[in-house]
Amino acid sequence: MNRTIRVFIAFLFAISTINAAEHPNLFLTPKGVQEIKSSLGKYPAFDKSLSELKAIADKALAEKIEVPVPKDGGGGYSHEKHKNNYYAMNAAGILFQISADKKYAVFVRDMLMKYAELYPTLPLHPIIKSEARGKLFWQTLNDAVWVVHAANAYDCVYNFISEKDRQLIEKNLFRPMAEFLSNGNPGNFETFNKMHNHGTWALSAVGMIGYTMGDKELVAKALYGSNKDGKSGFFRQLDMLFSPDGYYTEGPYYQRYAIWPFMTFAQVIQNQQPELNIFRYRDGILQKAVNTSLQCAYNGEFFELNDALDKTYATQEIIYAVDIAYKNNPANKQLLDIARLQNSYLVSEEGLSTAKAVAMENIPAFETKSTLLHDGAKGDEGGIAILRSGTDSKQSCLTFKATSHGLSHGHFDKLSMIFYDNGNCILPDYGSARFLNIEPKDGGGYTKENHTWATQTIAHNTVTVDGKSDFNGDIKMSSKYHSDLNYFNADNPEIQVVSAAEGNAYIGVKMNRTTAMITNKAFEYPLVLDIYSVKSDSVHQLDFPFYYKGQLVSTDFKYQKSTKELKALGTKNGYQHLWLEATGKTDKPIADFTFVQGNRFYSITTLANPATQFKMTRIGAGDPDFNLRNTTCFMIHQPNATTHTFVSVIEPHGLYDLTREVTENYDSNLSNLVLLRDDEAFSAVIISLKNGQKFLFITANKDFDESKIKTLVIKDKTISFKANYYFSEIQN
Amino acid sequence: MNRTIRVFIAFLFAISTINAAEHPNLFLTPKGVQEIKSSLGKYPAFDKSLSELKAIADKALAEKIEVPVPKDGGGGYSHEKHKNNYYAMNAAGILFQISADKKYAVFVRDMLMKYAELYPTLPLHPIIKSEARGKLFWQTLNDAVWVVHAANAYDCVYNFISEKDRQLIEKNLFRPMAEFLSNGNPGNFETFNKMHNHGTWALSAVGMIGYTMGDKELVAKALYGSNKDGKSGFFRQLDMLFSPDGYYTEGPYYQRYAIWPFMTFAQVIQNQQPELNIFRYRDGILQKAVNTSLQCAYNGEFFELNDALDKTYATQEIIYAVDIAYKNNPANKQLLDIARLQNSYLVSEEGLSTAKAVAMENIPAFETKSTLLHDGAKGDEGGIAILRSGTDSKQSCLTFKATSHGLSHGHFDKLSMIFYDNGNCILPDYGSARFLNIEPKDGGGYTKENHTWATQTIAHNTVTVDGKSDFNGDIKMSSKYHSDLNYFNADNPEIQVVSAAEGNAYIGVKMNRTTAMITNKAFEYPLVLDIYSVKSDSVHQLDFPFYYKGQLVSTDFKYQKSTKELKALGTKNGYQHLWLEATGKTDKPIADFTFVQGNRFYSITTLANPATQFKMTRIGAGDPDFNLRNTTCFMIHQPNATTHTFVSVIEPHGLYDLTREVTENYDSNLSNLVLLRDDEAFSAVIISLKNGQKFLFITANKDFDESKIKTLVIKDKTISFKANYYFSEIQN
Repeated sequence: MNRTIRVFIAFLFAISTINAAEHPNLFLTPKGVQEIKSSLGKYPAFDKSLSELKAIADKALAEKIEVPVPKDGGGGYSHEKHKNNYYAMNAAGILFQISADKKYAVFVRDMLMKYAELYPTLPLHPIIKSEARGKLFWQTLNDAVWVVHAANAYDCVYNFISEKDRQLIEKNLFRPMAEFLSNGNPGNFETFNKMHNHGTWALSAVGMIGYTMGDKELVAKALYGSNKDGKSGFFRQLDMLFSPDGYYTEGPYYQRYAIWPFMTFAQVIQNQQPELNIFRYRDGILQKAVNTSLQCAYNGEFFELNDALDKTYATQEIIYAVDIAYKNNPANKQLLDIARLQNSYLVSEEGLSTAKAVAMENIPAFETKSTLLHDGAKGDEGGIAILRSGTDSKQSCLTFKATSHGLSHGHFDKLSMIFYDNGNCILPDYGSARFLNIEPKDGGGYTKENHTWATQTIAHNTVTVDGKSDFNGDIKMSSKYHSDLNYFNADNPEIQVVSAAEGNAYIGVKMNRTTAMITNKAFEYPLVLDIYSVKSDSVHQLDFPFYYKGQLVSTDFKYQKSTKELKALGTKNGYQHLWLEATGKTDKPIADFTFVQGNRFYSITTLANPATQFKMTRIGAGDPDFNLRNTTCFMIHQPNATTHTFVSVIEPHGLYDLTREVTENYDSNLSNLVLLRDDEAFSAVIISLKNGQKFLFITANKDFDESKIKTLVIKDKTISFKANYYFSEIQN
Repeated sequence: MNRTIRVFIAFLFAISTINAAEHPNLFLTPKGVQEIKSSLGKYPAFDKSLSELKAIADKALAEKIEVPVPKDGGGGYSHEKHKNNYYAMNAAGILFQISADKKYAVFVRDMLMKYAELYPTLPLHPIIKSEARGKLFWQTLNDAVWVVHAANAYDCVYNFISEKDRQLIEKNLFRPMAEFLSNGNPGNFETFNKMHNHGTWALSAVGMIGYTMGDKELVAKALYGSNKDGKSGFFRQLDMLFSPDGYYTEGPYYQRYAIWPFMTFAQVIQNQQPELNIFRYRDGILQKAVNTSLQCAYNGEFFELNDALDKTYATQEIIYAVDIAYKNNPANKQLLDIARLQNSYLVSEEGLSTAKAVAMENIPAFETKSTLLHDGAKGDEGGIAILRSGTDSKQSCLTFKATSHGLSHGHFDKLSMIFYDNGNCILPDYGSARFLNIEPKDGGGYTKENHTWATQTIAHNTVTVDGKSDFNGDIKMSSKYHSDLNYFNADNPEIQVVSAAEGNAYIGVKMNRTTAMITNKAFEYPLVLDIYSVKSDSVHQLDFPFYYKGQLVSTDFKYQKSTKELKALGTKNGYQHLWLEATGKTDKPIADFTFVQGNRFYSITTLANPATQFKMTRIGAGDPDFNLRNTTCFMIHQPNATTHTFVSVIEPHGLYDLTREVTENYDSNLSNLVLLRDDEAFSAVIISLKNGQKFLFITANKDFDESKIKTLVIKDKTISFKANYYFSEIQN
């Protein structure tokens, strides 16, 4: 324990407590406060979190209170000031409860009074970029987050503030804000009642300030929607925004973000109306949502699907999620493994319980699993499959996306995949084109390239037909459909398979992708077999990119790389953002593309025919403001295909140890790849290794009934199997 | 202690010892072996190193001995096999000494016998790429490394092998190899007697096998050169290859590599001829060399100057260096801090002593320092300056290169710099274009782009004149000259300055660069002020690139970026490898270029005039085989300059915390930069901050006498100072 903490704790003990009557009861409770006080000095990580909060509060108290007229976008002065203000109020409020030092309460009160003075004078925020413009911030969303924190601060100092001041603050600030957030203009009314994370923030804000002010009307609106009919509101969101598996339709990045108001507001409801049993609602959907969120990560980094930036388990929203989930379900001890990693806790009963348990319990490792997460409120709108081999930080992991569109943050990337191995992202998804809160970068919001590049199909590891994005890039059309899961089977850890179909993304085109992660002693590391068929009655151009991180080592085909001049690959639908660096062809039936990342080599071995062209591209064309990252890509181009099946193996191999100067096995171990059969019923592939071993993989393409025996003849041998796939070593 | 180690130690204790008589006495000694045996089980990290060695030996013993006919380049089968063989023999030899288990000795003997059979049949290696072709490997260098390891193994099992077998092995293998390495063909004779790291390996090999066989003639040649006159050989290398500061002229990457045979052979000499007092030779030059090597790193990663790849303190050569250095100078306890980090030890008396000390001593932190390392045998050929602010892993650090050419691995980068901050490399040097031991990449050797790109001046953070490299890229010319240090002063940690001149790189052009690292409470982080003047009587084109890692955030000048088509910047001297992505100009007197890396922003603020053009480039043109990394660059282009002084400030600032979603201070804090005076005697610069503070920096440009008082008038005020620079805040 360092000195600052020791001094602070001594100081806390020395000060007499106050009676908080009905307040606080939003996020802190009198009982929780008491427990925190009596636990100080016992749990160093919790003490650290408290002292961090104290540092935030004390820094703010040392400065002049500033409540600037809103002017800037994300990252700009007024934006960051208002954000810092709500963090400061939240911290000071909690500190007041724990220390009972009035200076913290005075600070919160004075700041709220300043806001109560400013707020009535505010028009909509001058930056016109969001359909739901806020007043303090450029978008209502941030106003809602402001209220969530301010409500908590207000709850903490409620009994300290005179009734007269409270009336002023409520009349000039909180009531107008609640009205603005729920009903202030058509956009806000829509957001408040929308099934969307912005709606979750809005109703959490309104509900929390409602509870604090004792305004049942506001609470009812938050819980049951503007019309209090349950057609919107928090419960409806719990019904609609999560699938029965607890998957949030916008994807892992926004699931992480949405979990914050969901869990926070749920804890408030639990404190205020325990009879609602909110954490048991819908079979414990919020607990499932937390677990699902944690599963959507590799080494604690969330999968960058849809609009997504780098985010990890260390974010404050996941600290909220883990602490609250654990407090309300202490049986789930694996959460403690995440909490231990976070080493940071909510300063609340929830955080304290978790910190205590981390200090005292036997903690099992958090288990990452191969899993299928269904999408859609009823779980019938496709889903995300996660295949993993191994449990450690070097595990192989693959995501396979066959979901619905994912609301406004969805991408046009039906049947796309991401591949991780050896602790690194090997075949990445671009995520979003955005520089969060960096004002000179489009105000910290999504850059225009997010639409022109990141959401387009060609930006993803899946097939683009005729140079157009899925549903021709029409979000309304895309939102009507979802991919269909054929089957998912991870029962056998040595061969895990997911298969899905997409029949609506392109008119008259049926796509079917089956991806298997195969762990076998014949392979150095688990390999991925990928069978992607595209069927149509008419002729199409197919582009199938593999974005890769690493440096090209070798190919077994010839290519010509442009050395003096580069041209953009196309003019629209994302193609305008790719520099065409090289093109190649092969006269062999397979092609190999090998690159190195970290201390391992990766080969993509893929079927080729005389029409197949290989394009090596790099992101960065059509990017006048340097907004894009410049990832490289190996693209398979089939110019005139009616029915075509791409078969590829992604194979980690060898060792590139620069420290010991040891290089092993830089070549692919594969000698051949043959698509033996490929029709409506089955696809069968033989993988041949250089050492002579051969493996047969068969997938069913219809009648996905695990209990039904399937029979087919391969090379004069009758093969029967019960599941939807078959895998075995074969003799010549 | 894991089970394997426990079992292994028990096994060691169970076996009776043998008397090794005069052997081993190369690297192991009977006394050392005894100490190792009696220390087993006491020092877990040492035990781990031993068990790793045992794993190597046991793996090799489990396989059939293979001694293939040499065929492949680096990374290829025969190359890696012969390499693994020497590691295996070395491991087995040591294991035999420690365990006395004969199977290890049998293995070494049998493998040596196989080599004794193969070697006489070998012509020069079939790959013709080196001027000193080896027999087992494509270059003699690797043959020498083979002998160093094999000699040690032979020494360990010497007493075990029958005299008849020894005679055969010596006659057919070691004597011919020693002859080949020292005299085998003109190239080898030259290498053996050359002042170069290849020579160090060659003479260590010859010396070690000489000692083992008791061949005084070979030893004498190794110590005093082929003619035994001291004009070459080990002692001469100690005189010539290190500067008095212990700096190795090829640079940090090769210093790390050279230190291996230097320290290894020195320890052998110490064991065999302690009377030579080798570690005290030349005022302890080898100890200085180890310290200097360790200083040439940022966070344990060696500066990538000259031909260099990523290398760290964790490499085996630095383990050799640290363990041997500590054993021979236990007063230098800071070495233990590095050893603790390495957590791996030589299985020898040296390794054991170090492991013991790490376990038992109070270890002071290894102190990275601002330092000037003179180059040249006499220390009068310029040098490398290292400026640091802070001592932790986030310290700011800058290298400033004003050395001689650095032999065949040197680059044409007079007065170039590298900048590190916040744990990251911010303004990198390219290092070498090479994929070590990856055979498909030019046989694992230097790629052609190493010459066409990495060595050229435009690839470095320094000025290129008229689109040509220093000395027009002529290594013979470049090797005749060195830059001249004007002064170096790091006495005051708040203002550290280095200044150097280069008058030979371009005919009729004088260059002078003064770089200061300034730490002041007015700046968020230390900033770098850089004054680079180029003087000539004739008109020249000047290009001054800042290679940066990170993503562009903003500029305060307008630029046009190519969106549909990219062209190479030039056709030769490295320019053919740069894509010109954007060009810009400004009508203001300064220009600002801001990018983000990690969680920090960086602004380069530089003087501009109406002729100044800004070019934003990316490495990767003229690269048909995808051999180059694609680093971005901000380049200042002065098309028609006679006398021109570049003045730039490199300023870390702000915070970009994606986890907490906090962005602060993304804009430069500078409001202006003025070059107030710039002549033969002085350059004076005023840095103005947006908060109104102003700072004056003056550097002397001649008469670099620290004791002499300098006087000048700036803005009607007389300023006098004693050192070669002046820095102070000023009032308006």
